Amino acid sequence: MPSLSQKGKMMPASPIRKLVPYAEAAKKRGVKVYHLNIGQPDIKTPEAALQAVKNYPEPLVAYSHSAGNASYREKLAEYYRKFNIDVNPDEIIVGAGASEALLFTMQSIMDPGDEIIIPEPFYANYNGFAINAGINVVPIDSTIESGFALPPISEFEKAITNRTKAILVCNPNNPTGYLYNMDELTTLRDLALKYDLFLIADEVYREFCYDGKEHHSVMHLDGLENHVVLIDSVSKRYSMCGARVGVMISKNKELMLSAMKFAQARLSPPSFGQVAAEAAIDTPDAYFTEVLEEYHKRRDTVYEAINNIKGAFCPKPTGAFYVVAQLPIDDSDFFCQWLLEDFNYNNETVMMAPATGFYSTKGRGMDEVRISYVLNVEDLKHAMKALEEALKVYPGRK
Amino acid sequence: MPSLSQKGKMMPASPIRKLVPYAEAAKKRGVKVYHLNIGQPDIKTPEAALQAVKNYPEPLVAYSHSAGNASYREKLAEYYRKFNIDVNPDEIIVGAGASEALLFTMQSIMDPGDEIIIPEPFYANYNGFAINAGINVVPIDSTIESGFALPPISEFEKAITNRTKAILVCNPNNPTGYLYNMDELTTLRDLALKYDLFLIADEVYREFCYDGKEHHSVMHLDGLENHVVLIDSVSKRYSMCGARVGVMISKNKELMLSAMKFAQARLSPPSFGQVAAEAAIDTPDAYFTEVLEEYHKRRDTVYEAINNIKGAFCPKPTGAFYVVAQLPIDDSDFFCQWLLEDFNYNNETVMMAPATGFYSTKGRGMDEVRISYVLNVEDLKHAMKALEEALKVYPGRK
Repeated sequence: MPSLSQKGKMMPASPIRKLVPYAEAAKKRGVKVYHLNIGQPDIKTPEAALQAVKNYPEPLVAYSHSAGNASYREKLAEYYRKFNIDVNPDEIIVGAGASEALLFTMQSIMDPGDEIIIPEPFYANYNGFAINAGINVVPIDSTIESGFALPPISEFEKAITNRTKAILVCNPNNPTGYLYNMDELTTLRDLALKYDLFLIADEVYREFCYDGKEHHSVMHLDGLENHVVLIDSVSKRYSMCGARVGVMISKNKELMLSAMKFAQARLSPPSFGQVAAEAAIDTPDAYFTEVLEEYHKRRDTVYEAINNIKGAFCPKPTGAFYVVAQLPIDDSDFFCQWLLEDFNYNNETVMMAPATGFYSTKGRGMDEVRISYVLNVEDLKHAMKALEEALKVYPGRK
Repeated sequence: MPSLSQKGKMMPASPIRKLVPYAEAAKKRGVKVYHLNIGQPDIKTPEAALQAVKNYPEPLVAYSHSAGNASYREKLAEYYRKFNIDVNPDEIIVGAGASEALLFTMQSIMDPGDEIIIPEPFYANYNGFAINAGINVVPIDSTIESGFALPPISEFEKAITNRTKAILVCNPNNPTGYLYNMDELTTLRDLALKYDLFLIADEVYREFCYDGKEHHSVMHLDGLENHVVLIDSVSKRYSMCGARVGVMISKNKELMLSAMKFAQARLSPPSFGQVAAEAAIDTPDAYFTEVLEEYHKRRDTVYEAINNIKGAFCPKPTGAFYVVAQLPIDDSDFFCQWLLEDFNYNNETVMMAPATGFYSTKGRGMDEVRISYVLNVEDLKHAMKALEEALKVYPGRK
């Protein structure tokens, strides 16, 4: 049998999906499993987006422009203007999700062996994309005690080497729910300029900010036009993860020329998804008001429940729809599996993501889990109750 | 300004798209341009596929399984059974087009510096995918004189090194239209077994065979279960290039486990496209009978026209919808540009792909072009007439 690649061996298995067989087995035993493990919202897709696909006007489904339909990119420029983000259609490349957009970005910027600094915990798939592109993730600590705020500038400076090419942040953050403030963004700008690094920001949760907090984009930073790359997606915004429509945005013309070659090699992003995404931009503000109210309640439910559990703690997230909670446990991977395999409370249990998958430093996240509050308040209460009861009897309780 | 990657610099610009600005300028001057440059069929997508998307039943567009919807993979297994190809749903990973499926395959098999042997001329984007994955394409000659038949086994053996991991063929072939016979496939099987190499076959044009010829799949080869990877796509089959739905198929369990990690890192293939692709499988045979009759006529039109032009020659392709033609010209890149920039016949001209982009050996393809016969017969006649007249006056005529 021919041998396989080392790269494939290095690719991490999804920290979430490895629990799926245990969840399926639990369901087979008749146990209700509350899925707080993935970022798949239960919110409806805006009707206009679905309708646009239903009205798909063409008799054949042709390739779109490799950078995405011009009409969609023009409409996107309009969308960003609402957030005081100035961007032209030719500064946008549409990818098959933020995933592909980020891969184009990494490959255009970095060669194998180059380094990207990411505050951890971070979105687990960043590791996969990095291995895919052959680049090294250099993590720096953000801590639950500080609410996962941006680590101090000195930590970044310690991590910078002559192979460092970029800093990547997710804002609002998956998995922590932390929303960076303008001071933190300014710190990042100064770093990017001082060391001539790219600053890549994944802002797919832009709309999901709570407690009246405002989202600040890296695109708002002055003097950083050649250094900033914005990664975005319709997946969470309009609850259309399956459309596979994301973007990379930059004012750096050389970068965009390079990225276009990667985009052309795969011909085009998905046509149906782009039609839906274009129509979604006209989604009335009322949709978001309603969605945000709902998430606000969900966040409060989880935040209060966690902090009422003895020995458990979580900071109050102000963005996205995740929270990282510290639990009195020995091993979050084992605990999350145990919840599915060996535990139920009134025939119910909860599925969460062990936080270990969001750290690239081995040993971190052992007593933390990520909770996605993507279910309704009633379900979340049941899930939190199951978690509370589980912690009373978990044999690995600290 | 921060520096960009070497990888991005190495990525080839699309050999076709660099001519687009010249085509646009020609149109602005009022010249009709016949587009024989790309593989975007003008055939209608089967109604059932479009209808399925119009009936999209879900209120939200969720991620699909990372390997693709189970229902789609089951239906695909049915489709392959019609071609005597035995495949289970769990031996299939759905990608965003054959492009992504091939990338998953390359990355699972090969590390940077590893080598893949491909008979040239070959589909230009294979180069892009290889650079993307950091692997080296080792081309071996197939010649227009032999009709682009498989090069002799000795040529392959000369090219094999200790870094060789795979052989890649496209069957029926883009750009040559050549259809490999069973003897050639058996040769490839023996090579794969002797040197323990993967045999990857891109069979996206399976249905497009002419003159009553039968398509033989690498999946028909005995004893090669752990070595064969089939790459496929709905793009050409159902004229839905924009759906971005392709697959990689293999019975090698370890390979599929590795590829799944790449698939999970990007979460899911496009949901709408999969719904369309699943419905398309029920397309009645009459659709293909009609489509094939049409392409058959188109092929004959181009084949006869080319061989009636003084100094021009092309073999008779028996598959796909491309032909590589040898023309009495000095430089196909310049000639194709000149056709758009400086020539018209009765205010008409033709856009073709210079064959240089389909060779990785520098200097090859200078007197060859690829013609995609994706227009109706009447348009093709006009296009061929323009080409004939152009060759009479082209200053670089040999």
